[in-house]
Amino acid sequence: MSQSLTLAFVGLGAMGGPMAAHLAAPEVGAETLLLYNRTANKAQALAAELGARVQAVSLPEIARADLIVSCLPTSQEVSEVLAQLPSLKRGAVWVDCTSGHPDAARVQADQLAQQGVTFLDAPVSGGTAGAQAGTLTVMVGGDAQVLDRVRPYLAFAALVRHVGPSGAGFALKAVNNILLATQLLATGEGLAALARCGVSPDAALEVINASSGRSNASQNLIPQRVLTREFPVTFKLGLLAKDADIALDVALSVQASTPLLAQVAGLTRGASRLIGPDHDHTAALQLIEQLNGLELTGERR
Amino acid sequence: MSQSLTLAFVGLGAMGGPMAAHLAAPEVGAETLLLYNRTANKAQALAAELGARVQAVSLPEIARADLIVSCLPTSQEVSEVLAQLPSLKRGAVWVDCTSGHPDAARVQADQLAQQGVTFLDAPVSGGTAGAQAGTLTVMVGGDAQVLDRVRPYLAFAALVRHVGPSGAGFALKAVNNILLATQLLATGEGLAALARCGVSPDAALEVINASSGRSNASQNLIPQRVLTREFPVTFKLGLLAKDADIALDVALSVQASTPLLAQVAGLTRGASRLIGPDHDHTAALQLIEQLNGLELTGERR
Amino acid sequence: MSQSLTLAFVGLGAMGGPMAAHLAAPEVGAETLLLYNRTANKAQALAAELGARVQAVSLPEIARADLIVSCLPTSQEVSEVLAQLPSLKRGAVWVDCTSGHPDAARVQADQLAQQGVTFLDAPVSGGTAGAQAGTLTVMVGGDAQVLDRVRPYLAFAALVRHVGPSGAGFALKAVNNILLATQLLATGEGLAALARCGVSPDAALEVINASSGRSNASQNLIPQRVLTREFPVTFKLGLLAKDADIALDVALSVQASTPLLAQVAGLTRGASRLIGPDHDHTAALQLIEQLNGLELTGERR
Amino acid sequence: MSQSLTLAFVGLGAMGGPMAAHLAAPEVGAETLLLYNRTANKAQALAAELGARVQAVSLPEIARADLIVSCLPTSQEVSEVLAQLPSLKRGAVWVDCTSGHPDAARVQADQLAQQGVTFLDAPVSGGTAGAQAGTLTVMVGGDAQVLDRVRPYLAFAALVRHVGPSGAGFALKAVNNILLATQLLATGEGLAALARCGVSPDAALEVINASSGRSNASQNLIPQRVLTREFPVTFKLGLLAKDADIALDVALSVQASTPLLAQVAGLTRGASRLIGPDHDHTAALQLIEQLNGLELTGERR
Repeated sequence: MSQSLTLAFVGLGAMGGPMAAHLAAPEVGAETLLLYNRTANKAQALAAELGARVQAVSLPEIARADLIVSCLPTSQEVSEVLAQLPSLKRGAVWVDCTSGHPDAARVQADQLAQQGVTFLDAPVSGGTAGAQAGTLTVMVGGDAQVLDRVRPYLAFAALVRHVGPSGAGFALKAVNNILLATQLLATGEGLAALARCGVSPDAALEVINASSGRSNASQNLIPQRVLTREFPVTFKLGLLAKDADIALDVALSVQASTPLLAQVAGLTRGASRLIGPDHDHTAALQLIEQLNGLELTGERR
Repeated sequence: MSQSLTLAFVGLGAMGGPMAAHLAAPEVGAETLLLYNRTANKAQALAAELGARVQAVSLPEIARADLIVSCLPTSQEVSEVLAQLPSLKRGAVWVDCTSGHPDAARVQADQLAQQGVTFLDAPVSGGTAGAQAGTLTVMVGGDAQVLDRVRPYLAFAALVRHVGPSGAGFALKAVNNILLATQLLATGEGLAALARCGVSPDAALEVINASSGRSNASQNLIPQRVLTREFPVTFKLGLLAKDADIALDVALSVQASTPLLAQVAGLTRGASRLIGPDHDHTAALQLIEQLNGLELTGERR
Repeated sequence: MSQSLTLAFVGLGAMGGPMAAHLAAPEVGAETLLLYNRTANKAQALAAELGARVQAVSLPEIARADLIVSCLPTSQEVSEVLAQLPSLKRGAVWVDCTSGHPDAARVQADQLAQQGVTFLDAPVSGGTAGAQAGTLTVMVGGDAQVLDRVRPYLAFAALVRHVGPSGAGFALKAVNNILLATQLLATGEGLAALARCGVSPDAALEVINASSGRSNASQNLIPQRVLTREFPVTFKLGLLAKDADIALDVALSVQASTPLLAQVAGLTRGASRLIGPDHDHTAALQLIEQLNGLELTGERR
Repeated sequence: MSQSLTLAFVGLGAMGGPMAAHLAAPEVGAETLLLYNRTANKAQALAAELGARVQAVSLPEIARADLIVSCLPTSQEVSEVLAQLPSLKRGAVWVDCTSGHPDAARVQADQLAQQGVTFLDAPVSGGTAGAQAGTLTVMVGGDAQVLDRVRPYLAFAALVRHVGPSGAGFALKAVNNILLATQLLATGEGLAALARCGVSPDAALEVINASSGRSNASQNLIPQRVLTREFPVTFKLGLLAKDADIALDVALSVQASTPLLAQVAGLTRGASRLIGPDHDHTAALQLIEQLNGLELTGERR
């Protein structure tokens, strides 16, 4: 890609806002950074903050960018944005950091290819903390050579990994998240059974985290969010249920046999309905608590 | 406990051998260390190696110890040892590091209490490497004050944690191991589905291990043992299936609802039958591979 | 068995009462029928109703019977009854129609064998309607020849089947009931998904019951009890959860791999906790309803 | 519909052949019956057999029919047929008896609606025996009034039930079949556990079929096909796995929570891979047998 190019960022939410800010850094070398957000004043405020080369624009204006990065709630919103755009620049690249659906990636890649534009599905992991620190993990599906051209501009990432053809990035993100759901539910079940035997969740986690059963859920999420009863909403249960369903959809689409993940998707969807989709994703454990007639509370709460 | 006391160690296998060696260290302060093993020459060789205060003995002779540590395959072997012993010393303590069954712990604790002896169920985690390094995690059920008295002698451990009443240590070990089985099978299913989408296991694990779906299985066991196709036998699949069944038995005994762990126990038992109980526990993933008609192989294999 | 013998019946509940009445019929040929119930006036009322050869007695008096039939809530109550009895008649037979636990059957069979008494585990199926009509199915574990001797006296049954060694009857009853739980939950899940697609439960069941997916739950229980929202309490959810747990315990005891039934036991136990153990067993579907945010209601309700 | 109309039947396989024959009966009142099959001589032979008003035709010729009935392996084949056809008659009706996918039904209904043709998804249940006897169950999604118009011509059915909007018929068929898969696997697991306890499958099924755990699988399929070790191929395991996957896809599409059916779909897909998709669907139990290290064989085999 030429050195002096126009970048655009679409979707300035809790993740997209800090990600866009990294693209404005001088060492990234963008001549212009265009910002679009459905609620326009968010884009205007961020543009004002980030300096002269950054402009808040209307949706059609982003069509003149050489590289467009989007970060929206689901593939549905990406689709709606695409439907409202005029023709993009031939040779441009669209990097979609949404946690989307592989089927949508393939449709959107085909659609943009007709304009000579490359679509890469590039979901991120690392949460809002990683977005702010610029240490996100990006898993990318689509053309690896095109990825290499835009790689220098993805300044919000510590790891950018090409993982396969179009849709592969979204598929991997969904599988990562269903593994997270599995750990949450399985560890919660284990803690519930142990609590009924007189083993406190604190003691159990201290030992598990020094043993072979440890996972991100046992080491971080459950002690910090569940045992404290805080359940801070940084990633919603409804979105975890959506991701688990996407993972299962991916498995079905390739006729994979995943009986354990399938149960996890069913329980996560059920938890989202019974507990509520707007709670933090760790509130999935409240389903396990209700099935066991107890609460998983830490001693130091 | 008095400073000059007699220690005994029963069961000098891959775990017990190096654990016993730590008890012989001068700073532990045992006057005598008695070693018993079913195959006697193993005890004799280790005693010769560990020096003057260490003796290989017949089973009845360990009855004169103040503190007996055992590490056997299952509670069944502990039971057989107990049945062959004369009366133990009143006030002695038995620390059973076997991955046993909570029901057996309660029976054996009651039985020894009649002789004025305290039984602690104290399974360990950390593998043969941890046993050699003396960095095992020990999770202990039973009398916490008695544990405090013997704690200085458990020189093979980095963490000794009292976790609840008699049987609680065994229950927690079983739950830890079924969580390990859950991670293995769930991650394996995810990798199988992704492989069918064109995402290599290496790429998938690199991303998952930098993301929220990571666990001990994704970070260590699968890359080191499965993707290399080595499956080195350090912990047998048949024993993992036994531990998963114990965890489920524990859940049933307290009327806990653990639908996900229940499925895991069923699949692990099935894997042990279909693949064979003497393979390494990570060979449980070969069941997932067969259900998906593929092999999870690393690129750098 | 001699023609003129003394029969006894222990436990005159919703099942036991009508079963005992069948034993009083002249063609059964008992010289005397002794009735025992914890609440004595129930036994007295039934004895008065059944005529001269029938007597309400205290618990120890049943020890003089040649054939004792018991029908109690769980093996725990059978155990308590046995503990309060003097020696039984050498050569007597105990037929336990409780839905008990196979482990208890083996313990109780051994215990009675020491008095020269044969214990048969003989749970029944058919509900209160079958008990009244005398058309119960009896599945019997233990000595087949002894069963043949007492078979003529089991006048409450249409089918008496020897199914295996001691405990086999209880094991089979538990498996039958977990299959019932499986049908209930699986059909409920299917109806919930279809309802969300706009297919009414009535239409769905009409078709399923004329097709290959039909079962006792789809043909009888769900249309009669769930779609009507009546949930009449004839068999409690807490007892179904107990039976499902026994079935899983049986599977664990023989190292069987039953991943699907294992999940069913976990969900049934969870339903019993979340909905309440004293509701009818078909109220297990209210868990499925809550996980799906809907109610399965019939059009003709 | 007018009395003298042209009927067409597409797909003369094991199901379609006998179904088409019923349409040729004089009392159905068709002026002409057009037959199309990919292998043309099958259509010619059947036409010759059925008499003067029946003609084997090329695919485009069926476009002149007033009512077209299709019965193909999957929605994919229906799609291929539609792509090769010229415009159909305005006002015609297409009744698709394939076990198809609800998504395909909606696409195909929209596509035909543009030509003024109504598409009804109308899968059948009852097997080849029901097709020959003319006693099939038909579950229909789409326009109920149009169904009423064509109902008199569906002479192969004993029950024709409108069940909901476009796609509802296919959704219900898929759910019916996953319930069948559930019964097969669950009953198989139960029989395997019982066999390991010394209860023979024959004895177990005799009792279950006189009790509350009975289902179509326990009453018909397992005794006739599994215990005899015959596994006659009338409905392939690969097609059952496909149907189970469709059912799960349906559940995902409406965000239903179906943890139990989800596990069933995963195990059925795994069985199809491990045992082979061309075996009879009841061979799914061979997966359960392998997980348990035994064979479910009848005594009277």
